[in-house]
Amino acid sequence: MVSRIVVPTRVRRLSADGEEFTGPDKLAGEEPLEIRINGEQFTVTMRTPGHDFELVPGYLLSEAVVQQMEHIAGMDYSSGVDQDGHRTYNVIDVRLAPGARGPKKGTTRNVYTSSSCGVCGTSSMEEIVKPSSYPLPPVRPVMRAQRLVQLPDELREQQRVFDATGGVHAAGLFLDSSAEPLVVREDVGRHNAVDKVIGWAMHQDRLPLNDCVLQVSARASFELVSKAAMAGIPVLSAVSAPSALAVKHGREHGVTVVGFNRRGTCNVYTHPERITE
Amino acid sequence: MVSRIVVPTRVRRLSADGEEFTGPDKLAGEEPLEIRINGEQFTVTMRTPGHDFELVPGYLLSEAVVQQMEHIAGMDYSSGVDQDGHRTYNVIDVRLAPGARGPKKGTTRNVYTSSSCGVCGTSSMEEIVKPSSYPLPPVRPVMRAQRLVQLPDELREQQRVFDATGGVHAAGLFLDSSAEPLVVREDVGRHNAVDKVIGWAMHQDRLPLNDCVLQVSARASFELVSKAAMAGIPVLSAVSAPSALAVKHGREHGVTVVGFNRRGTCNVYTHPERITE
Repeated sequence: MVSRIVVPTRVRRLSADGEEFTGPDKLAGEEPLEIRINGEQFTVTMRTPGHDFELVPGYLLSEAVVQQMEHIAGMDYSSGVDQDGHRTYNVIDVRLAPGARGPKKGTTRNVYTSSSCGVCGTSSMEEIVKPSSYPLPPVRPVMRAQRLVQLPDELREQQRVFDATGGVHAAGLFLDSSAEPLVVREDVGRHNAVDKVIGWAMHQDRLPLNDCVLQVSARASFELVSKAAMAGIPVLSAVSAPSALAVKHGREHGVTVVGFNRRGTCNVYTHPERITE
Repeated sequence: MVSRIVVPTRVRRLSADGEEFTGPDKLAGEEPLEIRINGEQFTVTMRTPGHDFELVPGYLLSEAVVQQMEHIAGMDYSSGVDQDGHRTYNVIDVRLAPGARGPKKGTTRNVYTSSSCGVCGTSSMEEIVKPSSYPLPPVRPVMRAQRLVQLPDELREQQRVFDATGGVHAAGLFLDSSAEPLVVREDVGRHNAVDKVIGWAMHQDRLPLNDCVLQVSARASFELVSKAAMAGIPVLSAVSAPSALAVKHGREHGVTVVGFNRRGTCNVYTHPERITE
């Protein structure tokens, strides 16, 4: 599996002053993962292999297909085989348990959504915004500012695939009361990294994540705020900028949106009361 | 329109040493754009408003729905209205002209693809890889290394929305023979930025872009290499890392993949003969 996460290659390195060097290098793996639900294709996402059994539940929670691990009766790789009959590990069959909401029926029955964005195939913002099973509690302190501005470095320290390749995003869950992250996951897709940490928490039966800060290595898009809200995470912190829609969604759905968390300072765009002195 | 591209907000800025400041800030706009083809929903993408009439043709070319502007008989915003009857400018109806290939029929008829990734809803790599109408010419020099390593700075100089918000990706087309970029476009989604520059070139009747380097502000994913191949662009250069699949696809489909193009050096992963001393 390791060689599918970090893939060796050769590279020619050039510089402006005419220097050249050819040698080995390492790249982050990126392969398609098809998710089937009760035998029917649900979506395909490009992801870095590894922690697929976290990625899938986390994604299905984000899409309001399930609310907890008990809604998933089973997951397996058995349907995906190549021409030679070898298992590809790129198809996961999910069997839903009774009680799971399941994929949305009706007019959008055949409109597949994207795991990378949670938006494709939906026809309006009303459809895009899914109801969370874990409404956020009233605004109360979650983390001290002094700790919050350290999270990007704490996340970076755990990025093993980035160390090797320089080419993946990361997401992690952090508590104010613990110096160690609860979990850190990496992926070429930043949405996948978030799905993996949420899926990890589902396996641990830790939802809703009302005491956690979700720190991501990238920018805060609308979809990441939405994923935080779906898992009951009160604070989303990004190294880079939030979009206007991310801030609007955070304001309306009670998520504290933090951006530009870098070099000891950060910007709090919504519900700043959760961050204390 | 400007206030939908760069959106004002207020922010509370915190620092580790306890300093606090509350004031105005600007965010990059992010809104859903629904694309309909001949009256039927095709996809929804989250994009920064602006240059939508470039984004749509560029996206449809990437998806092999059209090959040139003549395949699009018309585009308009008229179907998108809110509850008050005001036009949202978030729905574009595309009317295809005779000769356009159109959306793929058959088993995947209702499997919508994502504009952000070009992968969602497809069921295998064979389906994901679309045939390009603009096969790349035999490998020949496209750009000098000295110029190539300057492209990230040249791209950055044109990023007006980034200047205001710090929160968008950019893509640009560059020729070795011209000091100015042909075109630069920005978007919260890096795939959208690429679709916009390709759509610009379609409006200019400049396809295939066989003499161009496509420089992007982010990493080189599989999808960006695929978009380059679809438009006949021989060189994709990224500021950050390529994925393993991006390099594999570039190798197999004749695209020169350049990564880590920053601070005067770059890595060439495939077909290095296009970059000269």
